[in-house]
Amino acid sequence: MEITANNPNRKSWLTVKEDSDFPIQNIPFGVFITKDDIITIGTRIGDFAIDLGALHQLGYFEGIPLTDDIFLQDTLNDFIADGRKTWRLVRNRIADIFDVTNGKLRDNANHKDKVIFRMEDVEMQLPVAVGDYTDFYASKEHATNVGSLFRDPENALLPNWLHIPIGYHGRSSSIIPSGTPIRRPLGQQRPSEGETTPNFGPSKLLDFELEMAFITTASNHLGERIPIEETEDYIFGLVLFNDWSARDIQAWEYVPLGPFLGKNFASTISPWIVTLDALEPFRVENPKQVHEPLPYLRKEGKGSYDINLQMAIQPENAEETVVCNSNFKYMYWTMAQQLAHHTVNGCPVNAGDMMGSGTISGPTKDSFGSMLELTWRGQNPIKMNDGTERKFINDHDTVIMRGYSKNDKVRIGFGECIGKILPAIE
Amino acid sequence: MEITANNPNRKSWLTVKEDSDFPIQNIPFGVFITKDDIITIGTRIGDFAIDLGALHQLGYFEGIPLTDDIFLQDTLNDFIADGRKTWRLVRNRIADIFDVTNGKLRDNANHKDKVIFRMEDVEMQLPVAVGDYTDFYASKEHATNVGSLFRDPENALLPNWLHIPIGYHGRSSSIIPSGTPIRRPLGQQRPSEGETTPNFGPSKLLDFELEMAFITTASNHLGERIPIEETEDYIFGLVLFNDWSARDIQAWEYVPLGPFLGKNFASTISPWIVTLDALEPFRVENPKQVHEPLPYLRKEGKGSYDINLQMAIQPENAEETVVCNSNFKYMYWTMAQQLAHHTVNGCPVNAGDMMGSGTISGPTKDSFGSMLELTWRGQNPIKMNDGTERKFINDHDTVIMRGYSKNDKVRIGFGECIGKILPAIE
Repeated sequence: MEITANNPNRKSWLTVKEDSDFPIQNIPFGVFITKDDIITIGTRIGDFAIDLGALHQLGYFEGIPLTDDIFLQDTLNDFIADGRKTWRLVRNRIADIFDVTNGKLRDNANHKDKVIFRMEDVEMQLPVAVGDYTDFYASKEHATNVGSLFRDPENALLPNWLHIPIGYHGRSSSIIPSGTPIRRPLGQQRPSEGETTPNFGPSKLLDFELEMAFITTASNHLGERIPIEETEDYIFGLVLFNDWSARDIQAWEYVPLGPFLGKNFASTISPWIVTLDALEPFRVENPKQVHEPLPYLRKEGKGSYDINLQMAIQPENAEETVVCNSNFKYMYWTMAQQLAHHTVNGCPVNAGDMMGSGTISGPTKDSFGSMLELTWRGQNPIKMNDGTERKFINDHDTVIMRGYSKNDKVRIGFGECIGKILPAIE
Repeated sequence: MEITANNPNRKSWLTVKEDSDFPIQNIPFGVFITKDDIITIGTRIGDFAIDLGALHQLGYFEGIPLTDDIFLQDTLNDFIADGRKTWRLVRNRIADIFDVTNGKLRDNANHKDKVIFRMEDVEMQLPVAVGDYTDFYASKEHATNVGSLFRDPENALLPNWLHIPIGYHGRSSSIIPSGTPIRRPLGQQRPSEGETTPNFGPSKLLDFELEMAFITTASNHLGERIPIEETEDYIFGLVLFNDWSARDIQAWEYVPLGPFLGKNFASTISPWIVTLDALEPFRVENPKQVHEPLPYLRKEGKGSYDINLQMAIQPENAEETVVCNSNFKYMYWTMAQQLAHHTVNGCPVNAGDMMGSGTISGPTKDSFGSMLELTWRGQNPIKMNDGTERKFINDHDTVIMRGYSKNDKVRIGFGECIGKILPAIE
């Protein structure tokens, strides 16, 4: 089925600023609450939030097999479970409804009142109830940097890294939508030099991790795998993802079973899920892999997407400083490889599961995706535009992640993924 | 409020065999499907399944604040979210209804028809929808054994182990109820001697892990902690838990982020959640801790429970062999410490979350909780009653876990937690 929603020449009758992340070619999916306290599934065009529940009740999705209440829900899980064919039909239809040549909704003031809201009048929610969340470790530059910092610069990559898309399970309950403030976590930290009792208190090394995450649909059952050729059918879309990390808590706890309290105090995602369909024009080759992957991880074709990613820190009452410019295409392991690997042992994946990329660091120093790497564990503090310095993140700092793809015809963006750090409660 | 349901002298008008795990003093909670394909929440007395949805509709819970449909659900999550006071009221009431002196239900054949089923006529389901599952590593003997096998027998325990209840996130989607068959998982394994390419195929070192798991209720919000004194109010009850492990997949993947595909192909739990209230008579001192714990992990009083745990392997068409006898009381870190630690950084815990103990190994060789430890990585195979030997688990083997507490007046048990291994699909 053709993705007619992606037609780069299409214009909408809704006003869209030229540099908007949300032209009519994007049509992401999210969940919002209106001023009247109604929760609904929606999309966004320009600075307008579109109520898909209202559109459906008014008959605009006629002919598409959808249950009556599919958009009148507080998560996208059921819609995602409907599968790729339905997502595509709905996205194509939305593009038609808002196409500049289509007067059906445009010329119906009563319907428009029910369907269209200004973004500042709605409150974005978590778009999915995440059943299970997995975080990968898929950037070679990041794994190399971390290995150099904490182990051995000469053998920075562990022996398994070039063969396995390394991943681990994260905590779903602390995944929060952009805008939710975050308390600096308390926790145990390594004993001081000469001491045996661990330190305890607020993390001193609070960090961001620049990541993206993909949202899956229901797929295999227990004991079944998803062959790599089919994996992309099970990926609904992508969000920006800041995987907050308390480096001192993590360093003391993580051997031998991996990160735990150093991560599970908060994980922030952007509220609009941009579909894999919308990103299709930005497909690019994934990096050439050092070893030929095992057969279950082999797939022909372009495996990555060109998505510019940026992280900025804004001190309270001061202007922001961009501290990192990276790109999704730097990921060594593709999403297809990650999902094939995750299910090769028969692990079931459900609609609304989330899989993080791991920190995406690029080849240059300004493209490293965490303060740990950018300041080389605090050795090279970052000079901020307000004259202060940062080794890690301070209380009252707001961390802002942005991401977009752009070619000469269209820009498809994710908006912002924001979190402000509040002081610890001791 | 008194736990009148625990009265050891109480008898039921339902027949209960003397060695039953489910006397009227137990009153566990579970979910089952009747022959008529109705799913409901229930309890068990002797070999009878009791439909709590039907009991409630017939008015037997009058006076207890419960919503009409609280038991007409396919998971216990909402009931668990009602909190400890409600659990206790319901359990006390059930004890009264089935008390030998109470004729109300006993003498109403019509009501009994609607409420009471024989266990062989119902099909047990997963009792909760597990939002997040965490596995701890709380047995000192197990951590010491694993450290000796894989690292250094002289320094088997890592420096953090005696200070932190080490834990990691597991996968919720592969938690299955007792009786569900399990496919031997495929996966990458370490390259053979002299090779650089990893091996791939069915796990050759498939293992069980003898664990228990506790189920929590909703509690703190993001950024809040549960003080250790309050933790037990947030624990609904316990289940038996076999944390299946593919040792060869795990060994190759787990550095540095912890176990992943070596664990997430299947995790089997027993279907009846035995409440912490029911286990109260079996409270015992937890092991004395080497270092005084940090203040947030300190709690007076008996922190553990005396629960006998057993693992048996039954080859196809042969009698079983008990391979391990352990006890919940061997756990070094208590459940209270685990939950206080888990939330000290503000990580939110929800109703229906599950927290595993980690493998519970005791001090003697026959009390080790995994084949890895029992056979010392295959060096000392176990002789089975049918004349065969086992280093790990074979295809078509059924692994059976059992657990119960017993004093001179009452026995409170968990029934069985069973899984049969099917050959891999290659």
